[in-house]
Amino acid sequence: MELTNKYIVIKHYIEDAPKESHFKVKSEALGLSLEPGSDDVIVKNLYISIDPYLINRMKSHSASHNAISFATPLIPGKAIDALVIGKVIASGNAKFEKDDVVLGVFTWAEYSVVKEQSIIKKLESSEFPLTYHLGVLGFSGLTAYGGFFEICRPQKGEKVFVSAASGSVGNIVGQYAKLLGCYVVGCAGSQKKVELLKEKLGFDEAFNYKEEIDLNAAVKRYFPDGIDIYFDNVGGKMLEAAVDNMKAFGRVSVCGVISEYTNAENKASPNMLNLVYKRITIRGFLAADFMNVFGDFTDKTLDYLRDGQLKVIEDRSLGVESIPSAFVGLFNGDNVGKKIVVLADD
Amino acid sequence: MELTNKYIVIKHYIEDAPKESHFKVKSEALGLSLEPGSDDVIVKNLYISIDPYLINRMKSHSASHNAISFATPLIPGKAIDALVIGKVIASGNAKFEKDDVVLGVFTWAEYSVVKEQSIIKKLESSEFPLTYHLGVLGFSGLTAYGGFFEICRPQKGEKVFVSAASGSVGNIVGQYAKLLGCYVVGCAGSQKKVELLKEKLGFDEAFNYKEEIDLNAAVKRYFPDGIDIYFDNVGGKMLEAAVDNMKAFGRVSVCGVISEYTNAENKASPNMLNLVYKRITIRGFLAADFMNVFGDFTDKTLDYLRDGQLKVIEDRSLGVESIPSAFVGLFNGDNVGKKIVVLADD
Repeated sequence: MELTNKYIVIKHYIEDAPKESHFKVKSEALGLSLEPGSDDVIVKNLYISIDPYLINRMKSHSASHNAISFATPLIPGKAIDALVIGKVIASGNAKFEKDDVVLGVFTWAEYSVVKEQSIIKKLESSEFPLTYHLGVLGFSGLTAYGGFFEICRPQKGEKVFVSAASGSVGNIVGQYAKLLGCYVVGCAGSQKKVELLKEKLGFDEAFNYKEEIDLNAAVKRYFPDGIDIYFDNVGGKMLEAAVDNMKAFGRVSVCGVISEYTNAENKASPNMLNLVYKRITIRGFLAADFMNVFGDFTDKTLDYLRDGQLKVIEDRSLGVESIPSAFVGLFNGDNVGKKIVVLADD
Repeated sequence: MELTNKYIVIKHYIEDAPKESHFKVKSEALGLSLEPGSDDVIVKNLYISIDPYLINRMKSHSASHNAISFATPLIPGKAIDALVIGKVIASGNAKFEKDDVVLGVFTWAEYSVVKEQSIIKKLESSEFPLTYHLGVLGFSGLTAYGGFFEICRPQKGEKVFVSAASGSVGNIVGQYAKLLGCYVVGCAGSQKKVELLKEKLGFDEAFNYKEEIDLNAAVKRYFPDGIDIYFDNVGGKMLEAAVDNMKAFGRVSVCGVISEYTNAENKASPNMLNLVYKRITIRGFLAADFMNVFGDFTDKTLDYLRDGQLKVIEDRSLGVESIPSAFVGLFNGDNVGKKIVVLADD
């Protein structure tokens, strides 16, 4: 039996803002009978996580990060790997059988032929939608959990600022912070997002950074006595404004700098004098560093989900052809919450 | 009895690089008989610590640091406070008597009339020169100790980069790091300083940053496999070059950014993508944060001094009139080691 597999590639390296025209849908014939002796697994992809960090792998020059596998450059014309939930349709590996639902590093494709080491885990049926394993119960959630609790060591009552606050990670950070008893302000790029943060997610305040002429003044308005914790998703001018408004011993955790990914001009120059005099810590991190607390993260997050205290915001597109626009949209602020492309239902 | 007290003031606020012409020597008559009921102490100043951070208090606009007392602006025409060792010549305070030698926050002056709370401690006679209490056994040493051991948590064998490495703090950091068993490279601003670092202080390597066209390439030359710890005294382009060459989980401690104090254009824009992917921590600190480990610091440092393992580098000028040039010289790299102005011998 043979089917046609559509997948997405970059036509060439992308040095600044991604456009849909930088991508192409390719097709290949895919046989479902595995070679004798092969331990490959063929997965029908159901849900694909769309994440901004991939832009860094689409640049020709990722050399400075070459020690880190998930920062290695992609190859134009070749399949792009991403976090995916899929269903096994053929398996040469004794550990996996047909109809197993698996989470792993597969591809921006309808089907992926993968090795065992690309499969992170089997997903059993659960009380929550499978897609939660790409977001709130997956790496977005772990990024929020590790970056907030482990890096920032928050205390009840502290003042927390979150940028890209309606994004996949920021919305969870803000909710964790509220549930801990912090004062939480988020910034986002539209009035609709601001309303979501305040009305649905319980942020104390939120503002639309695109409507602010002076970011420093905007931040000061919401933090007249200063910020204890800034959870940074964006870098650039917002990071500068946050550092200018930190309290003594303030902590900045940086999980991404989306405003810098596509515009090299947009580099943050945080005030180092403030850094010294206020004893500020700025720390970069990756979710993968917190696999040791994955159990704690899951327990706490499941409790919050079961109580209905943690709201889940997903933004879905349909079909493999929608992947380029879904990805490009991340950089235009089109998504609200975790961006997922749905290829088929489980 | 009355004497003449000469002291140094700024004529006006200083917004960029300090010049000797920005300062003035003033004189005042000083009576040695204290008012009845006064608990003042009159100190004849012997040794004055000359520190670059004072430039930040000579700017008109230190508002963003206004919560921190040692960052409050100085007043033109008024005495300038600084760390000083002096001898009590008159005392209305029962805790201090004539000929006590005291360390405290006094003034850039021949004599200072001070309150009890300005006196940090009495200095007993010791096996080492009194001036060590301004440098290696004082705040310079504590800055080196706290910033290196407490902030950076170094391990034997780690690769350590120190900027302003022949300065009052940097030279001690580099020596601590060597004594711990690290690989240590320092940068400084002259060939003479480079030789001092390598030949007298035992640094593995050192380079003259003024002779490097490409700082990033210079740092890479000495750290082909990356830096674990960067002890930053300068900020600006050197901080950027260090961040570009950090290893994963690298730590940057920042005790000052002398290249940024006098030139607002010289702001560091460390590569935030590196910060995230390499999980780098950049942390500002002040020596005062480490008073809780002052005992440990003193014990360790005295041991090293007694063994002759730690070399002390002092750079002395003579007389109150030499203070402006001593201070201005800090920003031109004139000093080698701890800068001290000697007013009289103990």
